[in-house]
Amino acid sequence: MTRETVGSVGEFGLIDRITKSLPSKVRSHPSMRVGIGDDTAVWQPTPGEQLLVTTDALVERIHFDLDWQDWESLGWKSLAVNVSDIAAMGGRPALATFTLGLQAEVAVDDILAFYRGAARLAEASGMLIAGGDIVRSPECLSIGVTVVGETRDGRFLSRSGAQVGDLIAVSGTIGAAAAGLKLLQLPDDDPRRHAATAPALIDALLEPQPRVELGELLLASGASAAMDLSDGLLGDLPKILSASQVSAELQIADLPVASSVRALFPHDWLSMALSGGEDYELVFTASQEAYDAISGPANDFHQMVTVIGRVVEADTSGASLRMFDESGNQVPHTTGAFTHF
Amino acid sequence: MTRETVGSVGEFGLIDRITKSLPSKVRSHPSMRVGIGDDTAVWQPTPGEQLLVTTDALVERIHFDLDWQDWESLGWKSLAVNVSDIAAMGGRPALATFTLGLQAEVAVDDILAFYRGAARLAEASGMLIAGGDIVRSPECLSIGVTVVGETRDGRFLSRSGAQVGDLIAVSGTIGAAAAGLKLLQLPDDDPRRHAATAPALIDALLEPQPRVELGELLLASGASAAMDLSDGLLGDLPKILSASQVSAELQIADLPVASSVRALFPHDWLSMALSGGEDYELVFTASQEAYDAISGPANDFHQMVTVIGRVVEADTSGASLRMFDESGNQVPHTTGAFTHF
Repeated sequence: MTRETVGSVGEFGLIDRITKSLPSKVRSHPSMRVGIGDDTAVWQPTPGEQLLVTTDALVERIHFDLDWQDWESLGWKSLAVNVSDIAAMGGRPALATFTLGLQAEVAVDDILAFYRGAARLAEASGMLIAGGDIVRSPECLSIGVTVVGETRDGRFLSRSGAQVGDLIAVSGTIGAAAAGLKLLQLPDDDPRRHAATAPALIDALLEPQPRVELGELLLASGASAAMDLSDGLLGDLPKILSASQVSAELQIADLPVASSVRALFPHDWLSMALSGGEDYELVFTASQEAYDAISGPANDFHQMVTVIGRVVEADTSGASLRMFDESGNQVPHTTGAFTHF
Repeated sequence: MTRETVGSVGEFGLIDRITKSLPSKVRSHPSMRVGIGDDTAVWQPTPGEQLLVTTDALVERIHFDLDWQDWESLGWKSLAVNVSDIAAMGGRPALATFTLGLQAEVAVDDILAFYRGAARLAEASGMLIAGGDIVRSPECLSIGVTVVGETRDGRFLSRSGAQVGDLIAVSGTIGAAAAGLKLLQLPDDDPRRHAATAPALIDALLEPQPRVELGELLLASGASAAMDLSDGLLGDLPKILSASQVSAELQIADLPVASSVRALFPHDWLSMALSGGEDYELVFTASQEAYDAISGPANDFHQMVTVIGRVVEADTSGASLRMFDESGNQVPHTTGAFTHF
């Protein structure tokens, strides 16, 4: 049997196969009046809620490499990075659209695997896949995903609410995705590549878990600001500080870095944790009282949260970030987000 | 003065320049609680309306060529193809997000021109630009646009409502975009390239006009089905026929093809009109009574509409499309949409 390719089945054959392959749960719902296949999707939002709209693009060899990312995890991740933006606002993800720019030689089975990964996350998040556009792109594989979400009771988290005296905390651990990437780039005979702890770190990179449930809890419990960590703590936290016109003091000893990351990369774990990016954990600020209301319930659904510092008054030079070691000595660092250019 | 490039100003420098360059009308409005710059946009939809969501991707050298498409018209067109999908549902476009995959060498001024074109259409359509994502794409320029629109009074046009006996009509003229493309591909010394009528045909290709006002009128007047012509009449009309389980009879003599297209391309004008694509006119079906309610007001806002045929019962082989010449003889043809692969 010859393998079907995007070129052999054509655009409409491909859309048909994708649609049939999706679990009905992610492509039909009473709120979805018109789904995949018309000029637009038609969807009934929840009365009174505001809408959250976010979009992200992923380009082959810039954001992923098919040498080490399989198509199913690529589908998951393409959706996850957008759902994470909704989570950072404390919102509820509702529907997603996809654009794929593909070479004709791509196997249909690979595209179905991509949607299997996306559908797995959509189903876990109670979302619908509403349609998209598939076009030819002879020179590079490109993916665009847009997610529409809803606020919760008309409220949302922003970056601008951090108050002097608030605690600064992060979910999960940081640096794991950067460690996973480093592992994938090691030569195959490097023993770290075969460590028992390696698969979990690689998974952290390939299938990040958007923190939707935690985002909802942050909103309900009165966290003052939040965002998701796509560009690393030193890239992203300054955006909260700048939007809120405050500064931050962080304790390096308190950073939640997995022991496997520290063990495999004794010289690099700190830079991975601070600047690695792609962890898609949430960083947030909250008063002590709000934090207490967050940490208990978070624990109940096995979501680790860790205080890493405190919001302080902006100094004369504006919003800034200072870091201290265990002896209380300030440690120099460079802030700034990963920039694509 | 050295020319700024995407690489020299970086991702965030570019976003900052884009944001400042946009007219405030297209980036702020009371309904836009959070605009460009946070994790997601936050927007308040009109109570009771359903949402229309559509997305399209454009890839360099597949959908456009910067040898003949300037950046400003590219911005217009990238948005227009999506707005056209909203128009085809009879909806109101509300907001747009953009993803751009760019090489580092692209001039900042070109990106600002892109957004100037997009903003011009956004302003004309009463839309907001809500954000996006800009990433590096070393091998090809790719553009993704998502538009969120709203229904009108909770109602929308679909492809599936065509009834036996309905008239079939199109807006504007068809084949102009295909003629424009052909003109751009002619050698520069071809006299047709310099015809007085050439610029209007090239404009039809480069800056298509989404028929939002007409879509609204079709919905209000009880048109039974509609879609926009992106893949040509023979590519798109069968989608209405198939969704509605009916057939169609078209009169070739009634097709609204500009006299300039007939004059410049005496051998090709019919195939341009039938299969050319990219006209972004609306094709719709309506009872005689509904059509009468459409054609008068359409005339008032200078929107030409033309009856080109009639909906008939599906024959035993299913939904099909038959065409007749002036003598009533059936003319053979091939249906089928342009496929990207």
